[in-house]
Amino acid sequence: MRGGVTDVLVANEVADPKKIDRLARLAKSAHVTVCIDDPAVVATLSEAAVRHGVTLDVLVEIDCGARRCGVLPGAPAVELAKMVAAAPNLAFVGIQAYHGSAQHIYDPAERRAAIDTAIGMARETAVLLREAGLEPKIITGAGTGTHNLEGASGLYNEIQPGSYIFMDADYARVRATEGNGTVGSFEHALFVLTSIMSKPASGRAICDAGLKAHSIDSGLPTVFERPDLKFVSASDEHGKIEDLQDTLKLNDRLSLVPGHCDPTCNLYDWYVCIRNGHVEALWPVTARGKLY
Amino acid sequence: MRGGVTDVLVANEVADPKKIDRLARLAKSAHVTVCIDDPAVVATLSEAAVRHGVTLDVLVEIDCGARRCGVLPGAPAVELAKMVAAAPNLAFVGIQAYHGSAQHIYDPAERRAAIDTAIGMARETAVLLREAGLEPKIITGAGTGTHNLEGASGLYNEIQPGSYIFMDADYARVRATEGNGTVGSFEHALFVLTSIMSKPASGRAICDAGLKAHSIDSGLPTVFERPDLKFVSASDEHGKIEDLQDTLKLNDRLSLVPGHCDPTCNLYDWYVCIRNGHVEALWPVTARGKLY
Repeated sequence: MRGGVTDVLVANEVADPKKIDRLARLAKSAHVTVCIDDPAVVATLSEAAVRHGVTLDVLVEIDCGARRCGVLPGAPAVELAKMVAAAPNLAFVGIQAYHGSAQHIYDPAERRAAIDTAIGMARETAVLLREAGLEPKIITGAGTGTHNLEGASGLYNEIQPGSYIFMDADYARVRATEGNGTVGSFEHALFVLTSIMSKPASGRAICDAGLKAHSIDSGLPTVFERPDLKFVSASDEHGKIEDLQDTLKLNDRLSLVPGHCDPTCNLYDWYVCIRNGHVEALWPVTARGKLY
Repeated sequence: MRGGVTDVLVANEVADPKKIDRLARLAKSAHVTVCIDDPAVVATLSEAAVRHGVTLDVLVEIDCGARRCGVLPGAPAVELAKMVAAAPNLAFVGIQAYHGSAQHIYDPAERRAAIDTAIGMARETAVLLREAGLEPKIITGAGTGTHNLEGASGLYNEIQPGSYIFMDADYARVRATEGNGTVGSFEHALFVLTSIMSKPASGRAICDAGLKAHSIDSGLPTVFERPDLKFVSASDEHGKIEDLQDTLKLNDRLSLVPGHCDPTCNLYDWYVCIRNGHVEALWPVTARGKLY
């Protein structure tokens, strides 16, 4: 793979035969693991792996409460695992039990309850798989919002937090529910630099970072190290900031902590990497727009 | 300008001295009009225009109810217009009275009331400007959601609808409130092509167009020509579709009508232009990411 990564988990289903062909081709130059949740895909995956002379590692994804992708835990997951294990050039390696939406539940007790249910489903499935002679070598899932819960379960042997390296505003809100009132050991590292373009009235400032500069689907951004300021709404090219003490003036610069880092990164071609106030590097966002 | 456009309205404030310098430089090769809402910017605009030997046409933007940018209508707007008119190489050409958020009010009576108020403010300001000897040659504003209201006022001589060429899902919802229950004379022309990547349960299908493929800030997309399907939520790489009749199967293709066209276009490098089922052209999205 570009960039020298030699071990890739595609933590998702790939169903399109053309994409599956590409996936199998990539498996010639890297170790590739992919998820599956539908018996109809087994043959396509297997044929592509045979065609390219590779073995694809396959995780059976279970729906552990998010009601998104995934077969039902228990018997349906075991059935699918059996099909994978029996297919040429596919290796059944385990299960994916990823509960994305649970990570954004702000109430700690509710969040824990959702993950406890997910862990129970994954555990039950693992037991049935072992009884069927299909050892789930990998049990994977979890993310920045709940990795501590899955991690402490003793069941998962791979966790998938990624957003923690940037720590967006929403995960910081989740993290702050854990008692210490801060983002804990994770610090913000992704910022959108913006300028005040209008200071039209007392209490209100307008910045030039709107919907084209950061994603608000998981809530609004915070203004870094400025608890006195509140970002209250975004339109395409405008951000409205409540500035009750009227400290802002035209062309002041602010660093926004995006509400959601993933779709925000997707808006940019480059990261500007800053250390101690100096630009040290420009990193390309190579995966932006790679949706075809 | 690239693409051969020779008359450009920057329907927004430009406050940063570096951006203002660039704006004045562009005015050498195209007719450029820009908005202003702050006396502090007059000198910077004027100096840049003098430096580049150009005249910049300037609109005074009034806050006509959106509480975003804009000076207050009436006397404050007249004061700012006087400053613009007196500044070297700036020409006061009129007012911008654009009420963006009113265009997304679903209730027709409320929408009309908001725009009637905006029109009243613009009219009052125009009267005062004329009394001060400052003819507002241009009175501009309006957009796809309310262009008919501003257009019928007899006051505006320039309207700014743009989204109508694509007609996103939210403007279609607004348009449908006008009585005929359809998007009227405007038809959908912007689509995100997506595939079903998982059909994990009865009533539910998962497509591969999530937050990285379309913007949901103004509501969820609709599925084009499939009123039986309902797009119910998006995550980064997934879209959840309610498919109560279970008509969808793996790898079925759907055309999504994005909830909001502007930030959706901003996600892509190319438009794929299709007529009668054939790709006729690829158009670059040249303005994507031009936020610096």
